[in-house]
Amino acid sequence: MKLLEERIQKDGKILPGNVIRVDSFLNQQLDIQLLLECGKEWHRLFADDKVTKILTIEATGIGIACLAATHFGVPVIYAKKTRNPVNTDEYIASRVVSYTHGTAYDLYCKKEFLTSEDRVLIIDDFLANGSALKALVNLVEKSGATLVGAGIAIEKAFKNGGKNLRDRGYRVESLARISSLDESGVKFE
Amino acid sequence: MKLLEERIQKDGKILPGNVIRVDSFLNQQLDIQLLLECGKEWHRLFADDKVTKILTIEATGIGIACLAATHFGVPVIYAKKTRNPVNTDEYIASRVVSYTHGTAYDLYCKKEFLTSEDRVLIIDDFLANGSALKALVNLVEKSGATLVGAGIAIEKAFKNGGKNLRDRGYRVESLARISSLDESGVKFE
Repeated sequence: MKLLEERIQKDGKILPGNVIRVDSFLNQQLDIQLLLECGKEWHRLFADDKVTKILTIEATGIGIACLAATHFGVPVIYAKKTRNPVNTDEYIASRVVSYTHGTAYDLYCKKEFLTSEDRVLIIDDFLANGSALKALVNLVEKSGATLVGAGIAIEKAFKNGGKNLRDRGYRVESLARISSLDESGVKFE
Repeated sequence: MKLLEERIQKDGKILPGNVIRVDSFLNQQLDIQLLLECGKEWHRLFADDKVTKILTIEATGIGIACLAATHFGVPVIYAKKTRNPVNTDEYIASRVVSYTHGTAYDLYCKKEFLTSEDRVLIIDDFLANGSALKALVNLVEKSGATLVGAGIAIEKAFKNGGKNLRDRGYRVESLARISSLDESGVKFE
């Protein structure tokens, strides 16, 4: 999506280690108009998929998921994070292992919010190695709901998370796909 | 607001210790239409206040703040939480001490997102003892921005957080004010 790519070029801050900071419009400070436009684009892409729920992760996914949901007219659920394993019947949980950050945690969600009747669209702000997205996919599959796909704002396409999921047959629609990121700037596919 | 009160009566789950769980529409699962209506009501209440930024806290405030922001047409900023004191020039921070939960943490926000030009509306989902809201107020005051007031979805009016802030001259607009909460049900003021 041109609008998002231009904003990343203009306001993204490149840090060492292929990191791009977008906290002036996508994390911490949220540009509501831009995020509504992202939501409109996902709605165009998934218009025929009869989405009944949008699923995201706390905290950075919540804003963009809620603004996307205004176009779909469906509820948003966010998976919570915990370092303690989740072992109650009330919840479904899925482990996230982040090799990048050397951390592990569980994502969890109340069973009653995702049922076999649901058709779920996952929305998240970033996709790189895909550890969080894979755990969300796993959560949907455990719930018995149907996964229609994932809408991602920024994909680091030079990492393998998106490729792995697409190779396994999942539909992943990223609005800005970064092909390279270094001191000379950001390039898109 | 009638719509929110009715929803609390219908779907809120009362737990021991004056706790009400609203995670099927306000936390974890978010009813987007209801939250847009809450936003519309705050916009009516603060229409003349020339709001330039909405401030909230991660994670439960983000959804309702973003949906309110669609009516105001302004960016949302969310304060992050950390257990480690924040000591860099890049951020402003404010301590939250929760006697209810026996915890303490810092809220922090990048300085550049709140300036003396800004007119800030705080939005949050819950107000009880007011420890988080007081820290947000403090954050706005430290930034040099003008605080126009706070919009709260559910206030436990039998706790003293809202009263304390109003007594100090702050404008706090709560859409549902719970006067009592026990096994016999929820009552509103």
